[in-house]
Amino acid sequence: MKIKVGIIGATGYAGAELVRLITSHPQAEVAAISSVSFEGKALSAVYPSYIFLNDMICEKADTVVDKSDVIFAALPHGLSQDLAKECFDKDKIFIDLGADFRLESEEDYKEWYGGEYKDKELHAKSVYALPELFRTQIKGKKTIANPGCYTTGVPLALAPAVVNGLVEIVGIIADCKSGATGAGRGLSQNAHFTDLNEGFHPYKVACHRHTPEIEQTLSHLANESVKITFVPHLLPVNRGILSTCYARLKDGVTDEQIRKAYEDFYKDEYFVRLLPQGVAADIHNIKYSNFCDISLHTDSRTGTFIAVSAIDNMVKGAAGQAIQNMNILFNLDEKTGLDIIPPAF
Amino acid sequence: MKIKVGIIGATGYAGAELVRLITSHPQAEVAAISSVSFEGKALSAVYPSYIFLNDMICEKADTVVDKSDVIFAALPHGLSQDLAKECFDKDKIFIDLGADFRLESEEDYKEWYGGEYKDKELHAKSVYALPELFRTQIKGKKTIANPGCYTTGVPLALAPAVVNGLVEIVGIIADCKSGATGAGRGLSQNAHFTDLNEGFHPYKVACHRHTPEIEQTLSHLANESVKITFVPHLLPVNRGILSTCYARLKDGVTDEQIRKAYEDFYKDEYFVRLLPQGVAADIHNIKYSNFCDISLHTDSRTGTFIAVSAIDNMVKGAAGQAIQNMNILFNLDEKTGLDIIPPAF
Amino acid sequence: MKIKVGIIGATGYAGAELVRLITSHPQAEVAAISSVSFEGKALSAVYPSYIFLNDMICEKADTVVDKSDVIFAALPHGLSQDLAKECFDKDKIFIDLGADFRLESEEDYKEWYGGEYKDKELHAKSVYALPELFRTQIKGKKTIANPGCYTTGVPLALAPAVVNGLVEIVGIIADCKSGATGAGRGLSQNAHFTDLNEGFHPYKVACHRHTPEIEQTLSHLANESVKITFVPHLLPVNRGILSTCYARLKDGVTDEQIRKAYEDFYKDEYFVRLLPQGVAADIHNIKYSNFCDISLHTDSRTGTFIAVSAIDNMVKGAAGQAIQNMNILFNLDEKTGLDIIPPAF
Amino acid sequence: MKIKVGIIGATGYAGAELVRLITSHPQAEVAAISSVSFEGKALSAVYPSYIFLNDMICEKADTVVDKSDVIFAALPHGLSQDLAKECFDKDKIFIDLGADFRLESEEDYKEWYGGEYKDKELHAKSVYALPELFRTQIKGKKTIANPGCYTTGVPLALAPAVVNGLVEIVGIIADCKSGATGAGRGLSQNAHFTDLNEGFHPYKVACHRHTPEIEQTLSHLANESVKITFVPHLLPVNRGILSTCYARLKDGVTDEQIRKAYEDFYKDEYFVRLLPQGVAADIHNIKYSNFCDISLHTDSRTGTFIAVSAIDNMVKGAAGQAIQNMNILFNLDEKTGLDIIPPAF
Repeated sequence: MKIKVGIIGATGYAGAELVRLITSHPQAEVAAISSVSFEGKALSAVYPSYIFLNDMICEKADTVVDKSDVIFAALPHGLSQDLAKECFDKDKIFIDLGADFRLESEEDYKEWYGGEYKDKELHAKSVYALPELFRTQIKGKKTIANPGCYTTGVPLALAPAVVNGLVEIVGIIADCKSGATGAGRGLSQNAHFTDLNEGFHPYKVACHRHTPEIEQTLSHLANESVKITFVPHLLPVNRGILSTCYARLKDGVTDEQIRKAYEDFYKDEYFVRLLPQGVAADIHNIKYSNFCDISLHTDSRTGTFIAVSAIDNMVKGAAGQAIQNMNILFNLDEKTGLDIIPPAF
Repeated sequence: MKIKVGIIGATGYAGAELVRLITSHPQAEVAAISSVSFEGKALSAVYPSYIFLNDMICEKADTVVDKSDVIFAALPHGLSQDLAKECFDKDKIFIDLGADFRLESEEDYKEWYGGEYKDKELHAKSVYALPELFRTQIKGKKTIANPGCYTTGVPLALAPAVVNGLVEIVGIIADCKSGATGAGRGLSQNAHFTDLNEGFHPYKVACHRHTPEIEQTLSHLANESVKITFVPHLLPVNRGILSTCYARLKDGVTDEQIRKAYEDFYKDEYFVRLLPQGVAADIHNIKYSNFCDISLHTDSRTGTFIAVSAIDNMVKGAAGQAIQNMNILFNLDEKTGLDIIPPAF
Repeated sequence: MKIKVGIIGATGYAGAELVRLITSHPQAEVAAISSVSFEGKALSAVYPSYIFLNDMICEKADTVVDKSDVIFAALPHGLSQDLAKECFDKDKIFIDLGADFRLESEEDYKEWYGGEYKDKELHAKSVYALPELFRTQIKGKKTIANPGCYTTGVPLALAPAVVNGLVEIVGIIADCKSGATGAGRGLSQNAHFTDLNEGFHPYKVACHRHTPEIEQTLSHLANESVKITFVPHLLPVNRGILSTCYARLKDGVTDEQIRKAYEDFYKDEYFVRLLPQGVAADIHNIKYSNFCDISLHTDSRTGTFIAVSAIDNMVKGAAGQAIQNMNILFNLDEKTGLDIIPPAF
Repeated sequence: MKIKVGIIGATGYAGAELVRLITSHPQAEVAAISSVSFEGKALSAVYPSYIFLNDMICEKADTVVDKSDVIFAALPHGLSQDLAKECFDKDKIFIDLGADFRLESEEDYKEWYGGEYKDKELHAKSVYALPELFRTQIKGKKTIANPGCYTTGVPLALAPAVVNGLVEIVGIIADCKSGATGAGRGLSQNAHFTDLNEGFHPYKVACHRHTPEIEQTLSHLANESVKITFVPHLLPVNRGILSTCYARLKDGVTDEQIRKAYEDFYKDEYFVRLLPQGVAADIHNIKYSNFCDISLHTDSRTGTFIAVSAIDNMVKGAAGQAIQNMNILFNLDEKTGLDIIPPAF
């Protein structure tokens, strides 16, 4: 019998992408969907690409919970906590694509999001689920914090270098560029076609909410506190995040050492593709897939290590990774429903 | 056991798309690929999006034929005839994505392509395989002419109106707009980023080679000779063809009659989505899928019928339809490997 | 002394473009600007590209009228009539980029816009100012109806053929494609980056409000009532309208006759560029300029004439043409301030 | 009498942009143009946007030199040296948009470009002409090295901080993103529409030839040797370079100090627009103009200074700056012919 999946916030981009991917998943099926803005309407009325393929009607969140074994929530921050509790109490798995359970430190959450943790026990039982880095902690959990998009791309680019102490952890810079789906379905001047098309600019320079989340992950990997400089930019494309990450090489570290460290670290990771020397990561090559492509570069003139990662922000950066986590929780092969070949164009 | 598929011309766009789709096909597998330009090289060196997923080496065409049950060829016109003969003689199915077998009239082929039919018998045994229109003629054939992109979108938009005699067949106009993949992988000024981006223009106005092919199909449907005016344009997007087709309504024909005719004609066609009143066809909604979306409109002020179709030129307009034909030939469900939900963004 | 120009609705796209062009006009200067949405704010706060170049504050409409010799209004329909009256009474020139004075028939206005003419006398004194077609009627007028974008591109493409009776006036089709600025600065799902990018679709099929305006112009040119089929589409580019216009050739009309008619008709028109045989009109080549490029094609197989025009919808289709009209009214060389070379890329 | 301008390499992007800008220059005129690839052909046959506006025929380089007072050359590196000598001997001003005279150190030229300096004396007499930084050295020179695109954007972003010693000069990172015109008119897979569109990737990571040129400028400003890490990326837009530059703040330096330093440094520079706090530099806002927009940011959490600059790579990064240099050499107001308001969309 297939896993019954409920999707809360199905008409947002992450929710809609979840519907698409779950529908192609051989072991799961969409049992119910909800949307505050479009309750009572068909998902395919919002996204005509789904017409006749998924004409499910958006119901209330509670109904979705009741009909499902696993509940994915793609909600603005602050709205997941009660829902997570409800799921926990009903012994259902809750996979949160929002930010409410991502930060271990409530202080950080207060500072960056302005809210507080209503149920600290529940937070303590939740897990930050970036499978390639924290796989062993995910199994058996009920409350799953699915990482954000930048917060997936940057740590995956840097992890082997940080874990193996090949780079200085002071002075790390992540210069990231995201496609427009990152701005969501909601209308905004930033994502108005004429403003974004033929444009390119940074935003929330050094103050984006993904900063503490990236630092939390890197700190775990480094086993000490890491602070980074993180600057996101908005790209005039639909999908994809490219993260160009800079770190100072420790003395004497060679290119071979670095490459070896990455090869070892990711050798069993299907979704991480360590690109051969001479091929640079490009968002063009991972679109619509769950892959994270990584290319390694060094600037020997200045002793700088440069790791570039490319992910599809809606897949590995959101819905795909959430399904990868579901697969882990249900003891399925991680790539079930996610063995997508990225189109060549 | 899976169907062994050989792809001749695998490094062109249609060939590369075939590789991608066959790789996800549950009943078929890529047995061998060839490319004149990249012989001895890996497909993934040409298309890094396939890296680690398909690193097959391009071989010679003959090798591909020998290793395969069914051979797809995506070659410039003129190069398929010998290959088709070879396959026929070796009792293998040959699906041609090029133009060599599409036109029934050798005169037309001479006029529009400048070549001749080397083996008229083989041509007589081949079939023009647009499944929704000529399904019954496809089964049992060995030499399959897969339609072109415009020549799929325009006839599907007009077929029910033409078959049922609801429109005048004199004066039909097809104003079509194609994404840049239609221009192929080969470099050209037309497809140079800076030239196409923020640009839009018609090309080969009223003299594109797809004209006689569209007319051949419409003539079969109308049961009399049809001539159309066909003007293609180049769109600054990667994929998709939108065909806006105009025909004069016959006196007294109502909107209801037309819609009914389309509903009846396409009621069992999974890949044709007749859109509800008020939703216009958009290439955005069929990207990466084998669907042909059709919207119907009438201009009652002038008595003009307007049918708009949207297809992905690389899927329903090339590789996807070729696989649909393979499925028919091998008695598989037509949508095997093609039940793709078009992404919402 | 420079002409004092007032711009009402300066923060909309047409208004902002007027500011840009007037600022470079050697004989005119922006005296004052207004905006309902941004009253009290600087224009450069809305459009940072103008920062330090035009930091004027948006005032009230009345103030703008008082400070100016000529008032340009770029307002939603229905809002220009009172303003036009005020300007007329104060003996100031009023150039309306909206629709309130474009249609001669109040019946048409009621049917397509749902309003009525408050001051019929004023309407009778106004002029529809498409210079290349109605130049002699413009001089001396006080209330100027500046044509819309599609309504400039389509008539210019067809005028010489229609005036000279070379084509049938029954069955004309205008298949038009507009860039996203046509949808305005206001946020809408249609113009949301992710929806429009990699998309293409028709809208308001055969029911766009520019239909009666195009017909009015063509009827004047043909000297009899003309009805057309008009289908606009939305292009994923910022600027430009390409109009592909189809008409049935009258018997015996030759390509040479047609070209000669166009050459004669436009021989003194700086802003109309009749392209040489073999060069197709492309929005790429007229961006940011006041030119209307026209290419001529015939489909001799079906007896169809195809005229393709390309204009920048914000310049020749709005602000540029309005300034061209101002130049006429003030006895300036028409190209004053408008002799812009379209960038090659 | 107008300055007679000759343009060598007029059919490349920089050359074509020079033609456009000089044509609008009130004190200069294009006297002659040359092109190796298109000799004997009209420029407007290559760029139809110039049709009827500049239909000059491409001549030989020598003819261009003879007809002109000032010669602009936009040639691949290695081809300017002889031409510069010829101009010098004929007492004509030579403005080189190529790289042959940019590097003071012949060693660097050998290392990065693989050539040598044929006439060391001529090199000694040439000047590196980035007006905002080296204005006083430009006047009176005959051989002008016009800076490259990245090499304009990065130093302008950093100059006031470096000159005033507000940042550490070790560890500077320039993460740059360029539009497709940077790749030139020549066809390449990188600039093939389908490859670049919906793609984004770095190239020549830490090994781009502009590296030593940026370092040369920063070293002059710092008065000591500076090495930087420079990573360019290719953006799917036509024009614009955004440079996100990172440097470690010296202890105790405040935001106010930095802003004050920038305000003072650029207070008389028309072409540098220091954006107000809260407005980030965006290539959208400087398109088609000679402006360099700069926004300042600090990451107080990590002590990192972030300066972001946006230029149009074809104008301030090439043709516009070359004309700015011409204006200086001919004692014209620097903004003559360059007082362009960047379009708002």
